[in-house]
Formats: sequence, structure tokens, C-alpha cells
Amino acid sequence: VKAEIIAVGTELLLGQIVDTNSAYLARELAELGIDLYWVTHVGDNLDRLNEAISRALGRSDLVILSGGLGPTEDDLTRDAIARVLGESLYVDPELEAAQRAFWAARGLEMPPRNLTQAMLIPSARPIPNPIGTAPGWWVEKDGRIIVAMPGVPRELTRMWEHEVKPRLRSLTGGAVILSRTLKVIGRGESAVEEVIRPLVRSTNPTVATYAKPDGIHIRITAKAESPEAARALIDPVEAQLRALLGPDIYGADDDTLEGTILGLLRRLGWRLGLIELLTGGLLAAALSEPAEAQGAFAGALVLAGPAELTRLGFDPEVFREDGPGNLALKLAAAARAEFGAEVGLATVGEETLGGWGEPPGAAFVGLAVGGEAVYQRLVVPMSRPEVRRRAVLTAFHLLWRGLRGRAGSH
Amino acid sequence: VKAEIIAVGTELLLGQIVDTNSAYLARELAELGIDLYWVTHVGDNLDRLNEAISRALGRSDLVILSGGLGPTEDDLTRDAIARVLGESLYVDPELEAAQRAFWAARGLEMPPRNLTQAMLIPSARPIPNPIGTAPGWWVEKDGRIIVAMPGVPRELTRMWEHEVKPRLRSLTGGAVILSRTLKVIGRGESAVEEVIRPLVRSTNPTVATYAKPDGIHIRITAKAESPEAARALIDPVEAQLRALLGPDIYGADDDTLEGTILGLLRRLGWRLGLIELLTGGLLAAALSEPAEAQGAFAGALVLAGPAELTRLGFDPEVFREDGPGNLALKLAAAARAEFGAEVGLATVGEETLGGWGEPPGAAFVGLAVGGEAVYQRLVVPMSRPEVRRRAVLTAFHLLWRGLRGRAGSH
Repeated sequence: VKAEIIAVGTELLLGQIVDTNSAYLARELAELGIDLYWVTHVGDNLDRLNEAISRALGRSDLVILSGGLGPTEDDLTRDAIARVLGESLYVDPELEAAQRAFWAARGLEMPPRNLTQAMLIPSARPIPNPIGTAPGWWVEKDGRIIVAMPGVPRELTRMWEHEVKPRLRSLTGGAVILSRTLKVIGRGESAVEEVIRPLVRSTNPTVATYAKPDGIHIRITAKAESPEAARALIDPVEAQLRALLGPDIYGADDDTLEGTILGLLRRLGWRLGLIELLTGGLLAAALSEPAEAQGAFAGALVLAGPAELTRLGFDPEVFREDGPGNLALKLAAAARAEFGAEVGLATVGEETLGGWGEPPGAAFVGLAVGGEAVYQRLVVPMSRPEVRRRAVLTAFHLLWRGLRGRAGSH
Repeated sequence: VKAEIIAVGTELLLGQIVDTNSAYLARELAELGIDLYWVTHVGDNLDRLNEAISRALGRSDLVILSGGLGPTEDDLTRDAIARVLGESLYVDPELEAAQRAFWAARGLEMPPRNLTQAMLIPSARPIPNPIGTAPGWWVEKDGRIIVAMPGVPRELTRMWEHEVKPRLRSLTGGAVILSRTLKVIGRGESAVEEVIRPLVRSTNPTVATYAKPDGIHIRITAKAESPEAARALIDPVEAQLRALLGPDIYGADDDTLEGTILGLLRRLGWRLGLIELLTGGLLAAALSEPAEAQGAFAGALVLAGPAELTRLGFDPEVFREDGPGNLALKLAAAARAEFGAEVGLATVGEETLGGWGEPPGAAFVGLAVGGEAVYQRLVVPMSRPEVRRRAVLTAFHLLWRGLRGRAGSH
């Protein structure tokens, strides 16, 4: 199967956005064993879009379009596909009903132009888009497949993952590419690579590392005749990696650090309370979002700065004498008390540390769990948002280390 | 001048890297007033690279290639240009001397393959690359220009800035492209387009709408002989847009909604306190991040659910009788009191609303400011994260509307 991507939108050609969709789809196609030979960016212009689609159909088996499915006059992907295939657009009654229901559920009248999002051509089947108003199109004609998806990355990735990828998998004729990702926290990418170097040279499965915001990901990818055969290639390599890095591996594949932490809390029947002086609600936002938060996340007190500490009944001057590590510990204990929680976590940084001669970018994270309390210091000589983000990761790391032993997992 | 970009490299088609070069070049071309109509990604394959270059020369005046200028067998950009133009490669003595000097300066012998980086064709002039080993090519033939630059972003941007852009500027005769973006909240994209439809048909300046997470962006783009002339084209259109949509425009260009809100708070000398029952810290994270948060963001209490309401000294049963709108209002007032702030904002949703027969995805936002309190109800029949994000946007909208009149801005 030869594939080609057409990313549609004048904003791409003005450099107003970077085309991350194509890189995502490229990775996904590689995993499916589908060869991608061309990526084209084209603006919101019917003639050039027709040209791009015609050419793609002439040289590729699978043409994936992103963007141009919105309701405005600039959204031309549907028109262009119809024109190139010589088919007529019609309003599909079911899609129209779904569009009207979408607006009605919000107590609004559907803007007339949005009816274009209910349009199809005879060769097109709609692809559901539960998180947006534009359905995708799955078009099969003359042995070619055209897939059109919305350009909004969140909608595109969801549609790809749930609808398009499963259908394409059947096209790849039995050869499967499977991968497993192990996620490591607390080590740098080169340190991880040093440890696993002998495995990186393997060709099937391949082993590659990626530095991500939530740690280092190690991806094991195998190509085989069946899922079972692919798994048989992956399993021994995974076992080797776990032997080498086990204590630092927090999850696999779709596991997230916050999901793992919330899972441990639920297993223990414990709840978590937060006091955020540095991270301003970022920890709370992350730890309250997954469905697993229910019963595990108790609440957070977000304070703008040291002046607010008096709200907790503390005299900030007292802490100046004890040092910032002790402040983090006492705030962690206060977070437990404040929310009647078994686990308390606190972050401090910035002007709160001013009196102690800490360098810019210094931060402390405190954790109170069981009878113990620990803190960790970090220094991130970067911008304020970057310091906040690193402190969040450090807090997750500390929390995960503090919980996993108690929950009886490795 | 019609331009086209060809980004060369199999790593692009495997999704191993994101093509940031093209977005950079696209912005730069727009500023130079050069129209970019196509971007193509092609792998390290001579036939397909030939195809891409031939087609580009057939439809564009300026073809910019990035990548494929290294010394390895995969680097085919020079060969492909030579093949398409029907010219022969030769080793340029000056470039060869420069290559050898580069290696000698490092006490190393030049690897034989690096001689390819000293090659030219008769129509090509080398473009200096003081921070890498691959010179670029500037090719003029039959009224077309081909520019080939290394794919390493650092080398490409330097070469563009110092060598290519100055030469291209002379081609465009001083024409510039300027744009201004107005940001609208509280209306959908098709509703905005409905209102501004007559303006969307304009060709200079052009007017286009984009749906973004923080509202609808309207971009006015003008092409003219000078920045002053471009502004003279933009200004009257901006005035028309402001007349049509004024009350819903919260900012322009780099303005953010949270920055605008924090700016209004600072102008008023007011502080904001939050109680987040639904949004779990998302509002606090957004409103505490910008530098303008200092002195304007007081703090947030993030609660996991209705059970936690008792912590505030409220009997949840009382609220059941008053209805969820009143709960949002009382929580907003409590947010003010809790943080000694002039403005209080609160979000409720999910199980907290269970007793009132609200549909799934219902949410309430309450605002207490001055002597007034208002609430807004929204229904987002989507996933939990989506409900939270829409509630954040609604809260921003309510807050902005509540503050701007008092701050004396429009």
C-alpha cells in the first residue's frame, strides 16, 4: 500500500501553524507497515486542491487529507474530492439530524452554513467525530481509498485511533507491526541509552528511545506475520529492559504518570491533598482530570505566594529559620490536614524562597505519606513556565516513588 | 513571485522529525510578499525527488529545497537538480579547498565522500555555510530560481537570514505583507463569518477566520509597497470589524484571554479568588502562569466534589433547594471571602449537579464582582475533559465581560 498525505490550509502556507498532524500520521503509517511517499501542503484554494488530489490518486493507493472540513467558505476539501471524482454532493439526512441535534443540545440554532458538514458524495461513508462537528469521509473508488479528517489535532488523532487505523489495519494483509512502549522516569535519555545500548542494535524488534515531557519512552517494535509472532519477538526484549531498568519504569503504552499515581492511591484506598505555591494548580489540573481521580483526588489549595501562607495559620517568619526543605515538609503535612487526606504534597518556589538565598529557578517539593515526610530540591535555570513544569514532573516522580512500595507493586 | 518548498528526507516521511523548517520559511516568505502555494515532503529517493523538482519548476518561479545536501549516499538533492536541469556535476576547486581546510583545521583527513559537498553545476553558485560543511546552491535558469539549503534548522535559518533573504528581497521590489489578528469570544466560527461575510471576499487585504481553543481569530492580511501602505489597507477593515463585532473582540495579535483578564484586574487593583469544583485547577493553572498574575491572582480552592463543600461550612442540602445557579453564585461569593479578593469565580458540574436533574455535561460558572453576582449555565454533551475545557472558556468569557466595563475599556 502506497500512501500520501495532503494537509489543507492556507495557515500552513503562511507559517502560522506547524504541520504536526503529518508527522503523527507518518509515524502511525510506519507502524502499520504502510509506505508513505509524499506529503503535500496546499492552501484553501479549490484549483490547487483539485490538482493535489488528482495527482495523489494517480500515484498512491491511499490518500489521507487533513483539514478543510469546517463549515466556512474556506473549507473546500469536500468540494474538491467531489469534483475530482466527478460526483455530486448531497445532504445526508442522518448527518443533518446529527448536526441539528448537536446545536439543539446546546440550546442553539444551527447556523445555515453548518449544513455543509452534513454533506456526502455517493462513494463516501461518514466517519464519526464525537468531539467535533465535522465528520470525516471514508471514500473508496476505483481501487483507491481517500480518507478525509478534520485538521484540529485532537479531533484528527481521535478519529485516526478509533476509526481509521482499525479499518486500515485490515488492508495491510496480515503483516503486522506491533510495538510496546516502556516509560522511564528519573533518568536522562543518554543514561537510558547507555544502559540499553546492546538492545538498540537489534533490527527485529527495533528498540528506540524518545525524550518526552513525562520521561523517557523506550519503544520496542516488531514486524511479523501475526500479532502472536510479533509479541513473541517483543516479550523477551521487554523482559531484558525490565531487568535493566525495572525500578524506573512507571508504565507501558498508554499509561500516564498521573493515571499510574491515581491507580496506586485507589489500590491503597488513600486520598491526596495538595498545596501549590509554585505550580499554581497544574498538579491539581493533571491529577483531577482522569476518571481514576474519583475517590483518590481530595482537593488542592493554590496560593499566589508566601503572603498567603498566613491563611494556613502559619507565621512565615518561623519557616525562614527552618530552611526551605522544612517549609516544603510542613506544607505537605498541612495539605494532608487541610483535606483530611492520607497523602499530602506541596510545591514551593520563586519569591517564597527569596529569604534563603536560593538561586533563581530553585524549587522544593514536599511529600507526606504514612508516617514519613520527604522533600526534593530542584534548580531549573529557565523561564517561569518551565520551572513550574519541571516541578510538576518532580512532584509526580516523588509521589510515585512514595506510593509504589506501599501499594505492593514493584 | 510564486514560491514552492520541497523538504527532503525519509525521516520526515517516517514521522521521526516534524518539518519546522517549512513553517519558518513560510512565515519569512509571507513577510517578503512572496506567495507560497505548495509545500512537499519527499524522501531520499532520486526518482521521486526528480519528479518533485520538475513539477515545481513547471508551476513556480522560486523553488526552495531543504535537506539532502549532506555527504552520505542518501543525500541526493544536488544530483536531482543536476538531472532535472540536464547539467553535469563537477568539483569546484575553491569549494574543495574550503572542504579540505575545514577538516585540516580539526586535525582530520577529509572523508572521501565529503568531496560531493564541493560539487556544483554550471548554473549554480555556492551559498556560504560558515557553521556547517554543506554549502547551499543558488541556481538561476530559464527565469526560474532554485535555492537549496541544508536541512539542519540552525544552518538553514542562518543561511536564509544572511544570504538568501537579502538576495530575494531585491526580487520582490520592496513589497511587504503585514497581518493583524482580532480575537473574538462568545460566537462560533460560522456565526462570525455570517457577520463579516462581505469582508471575507476582499482580496487585499484578505480576511479569514480560524477556530482556536481561545475563540475565533480573524486575520486581516495586506500586501503593499511599504509597511505604512499595508497598514493603511488594514486599518479601515479592522475598524469595520470592530464596528461589527466590537463587544466580542477581546484582543489582537499576541494578546491572550488570560493575559487580558489579568491586565484588567491589575488596572482595577483587584485580586481574583477561585473555587473550582468542576475545572479541577485548570483555571488556576492558566491564570497563575503569566507574569501579569502577580498581584492579580490571589489563589484557588480546588475541591474534588460536593462532599468537600462541607469544608467551606456549607450544608449541601441547603443548596439543593436553591438550584444550581444559586450554588454557583454562593460559591463565587465564598471564593471572594476565602481569599480576601475583590473578584470571586466558581465552577460546578458533574456529580454536584446530580440532585437537580441536570443533563450530563451540564456546568455552571458563577462570578461575584463589585456588588453583583451572575452565573452562566452551559451544556457540553461530551467527555469529561471536554466539559472541563469548555467550562474554562466560559469562565474566562464571563470574567472578561464582568471586568471590562468596570475597567473603563470597551
